[in-house]
Amino acid sequence: MRIALDAMGGDQAPNEIVAGALQALEDLGDEELILIGDEPQILGLLGKPDVWEKNISIVHAPEVIEMHDHPVKSLRRKQKSSIAIMAKMAADDEADVAISAGNTGACVAGCQMQMRLLPGVNRPGILVVIPTINGPIAICDVGANVSSKPINLHQYALMGSLYMKEIFNIDDPTIGLISVGQEDNKGNELIKKVNKMIREDEHLNFAGNVEAREFLNRPCDVIVCDGFVGNVILKFAEGLAEGLFRIISQELTKLKPELTQQFKPIMDNVYKQHDHIEYGGAPLLGVDGTCIICHGASDARAIKNAVLRSRELVNTRINEKITEWLASVPVSEVES
Amino acid sequence: MRIALDAMGGDQAPNEIVAGALQALEDLGDEELILIGDEPQILGLLGKPDVWEKNISIVHAPEVIEMHDHPVKSLRRKQKSSIAIMAKMAADDEADVAISAGNTGACVAGCQMQMRLLPGVNRPGILVVIPTINGPIAICDVGANVSSKPINLHQYALMGSLYMKEIFNIDDPTIGLISVGQEDNKGNELIKKVNKMIREDEHLNFAGNVEAREFLNRPCDVIVCDGFVGNVILKFAEGLAEGLFRIISQELTKLKPELTQQFKPIMDNVYKQHDHIEYGGAPLLGVDGTCIICHGASDARAIKNAVLRSRELVNTRINEKITEWLASVPVSEVES
Repeated sequence: MRIALDAMGGDQAPNEIVAGALQALEDLGDEELILIGDEPQILGLLGKPDVWEKNISIVHAPEVIEMHDHPVKSLRRKQKSSIAIMAKMAADDEADVAISAGNTGACVAGCQMQMRLLPGVNRPGILVVIPTINGPIAICDVGANVSSKPINLHQYALMGSLYMKEIFNIDDPTIGLISVGQEDNKGNELIKKVNKMIREDEHLNFAGNVEAREFLNRPCDVIVCDGFVGNVILKFAEGLAEGLFRIISQELTKLKPELTQQFKPIMDNVYKQHDHIEYGGAPLLGVDGTCIICHGASDARAIKNAVLRSRELVNTRINEKITEWLASVPVSEVES
Repeated sequence: MRIALDAMGGDQAPNEIVAGALQALEDLGDEELILIGDEPQILGLLGKPDVWEKNISIVHAPEVIEMHDHPVKSLRRKQKSSIAIMAKMAADDEADVAISAGNTGACVAGCQMQMRLLPGVNRPGILVVIPTINGPIAICDVGANVSSKPINLHQYALMGSLYMKEIFNIDDPTIGLISVGQEDNKGNELIKKVNKMIREDEHLNFAGNVEAREFLNRPCDVIVCDGFVGNVILKFAEGLAEGLFRIISQELTKLKPELTQQFKPIMDNVYKQHDHIEYGGAPLLGVDGTCIICHGASDARAIKNAVLRSRELVNTRINEKITEWLASVPVSEVES
């Protein structure tokens, strides 16, 4: 298996990306890890060749798409960027997996344009798995498509269901649709239409609408939403969790500084239970290939996990199953 | 001032509502508090008349709109419900303020139908004030209107700006628009249009798009969003905060039970800093009158605060200012 890794993408690139590649080495078999980016920098970070030359190769990319570059425009302008080259390699069957912690929009656009979509898929979706004390919950889409049509959400339900079945061995995963109330008639026009479509689709195990306050209780296996809403939720969760931990820590230091050390293992444990890094990046479902999008703040461990987990995704042949399912389910017929 | 209070609305009604009314008494001057609901129940809860008869009167409502009733249908079917009577009293100038912790959809629909909208307002919006360590931040709309048009969000910006100026004495409040990225070109079609409208409106102090991860850092004074997104955020925040506190408490009990008591004041302080109950309910801005919507889980203290805070809202004459502003700003001309 050949895993293409964007060495220049992410807030801590290339250092943490290359460090993650090195950390992944000990768990790799004969997989090839292709680092794409500025060759001199990558070589400098890799260190002695005897450590890595068995598994790692480098493809030089002289350009970088920055985090705030316009996705489509920058892809057109920077055809020698690491993201553009990575997507093209995956499309040209020079890599089996593409992984990037860089500009998400550019990565989605690049992979979609180069790799194309699976037959029957209208739009790709990013699926993120969030750990809860009751187990992992998937949420799709979290930002690949911020102007979803009903058919897109219906397909996210199908792809999310397959993902949780294949990767987490959940039999007949339950699907929840984010809305402002549990009743079928609650929500905006998009949600009302999708509710009807999923409810009428006998291949899906629909749990109905779910409210956002229930997420951490894990009301279902897969949460389906528009990419705008999913992206806002994900970022809000990050900000809120960080904010609360910071405030608790401030109060602790202020009121009971002597407890700070004793309290640390508590917080470490809470963190660990909600450590999304364990799940190793978010797949871009629906593209004809395997693309994993990592958080912009990814450190070496996050990259290592994404590399190792990406093998499972290829091995499950989830794309074949998505294609088969979409061919057998007349999703487009019920589009409204 | 006559304050109409839906005694039957909310998860803990009528007990906590009546208790809240009694708690408000000591801070009331000559205001009249009109409790609307099942008279025998209310009388039983009020206790001795000499305590309350100076300020409280009762209007009997034989019907109740339940939390899960369909808003518009139930209003039509239950014309003698506390919400329907409350809205009608406010519309007929028999009350200056309407307050309910009941079915939000029914309350919005009832007030909108009975009280009508202020001249120039296209749709009302619910504004919630969230406390942060950097001060209060307003978010509008959180669920009155789940299918917003650009003009609605533009008007939420105007009304939210006036609200923060009048109630929190913030000079020229800054407006942020929720999106998936800070750049003007990030977001769905709705957000891109609204971004342009607010940016071109010289009466508004636009801070640009804001990302949800920044909320607790208070990136602006007023956050504007579609009611679907706002509602999801609000409910998610509730669930996440509760969930994190619960998990921390579980870990504490498991790992360091001896610290539980010592840690309590820390958590109490964190709670207190984020206690939205202090702000006393959420105004439904844009209706021709004063309507305050309380959280369904409101306890006596929340109701008491809503009653007392509602006076400020009437006294600021914010509705006159909204009307004046909308008459002078050609909002509808830039509608797209």
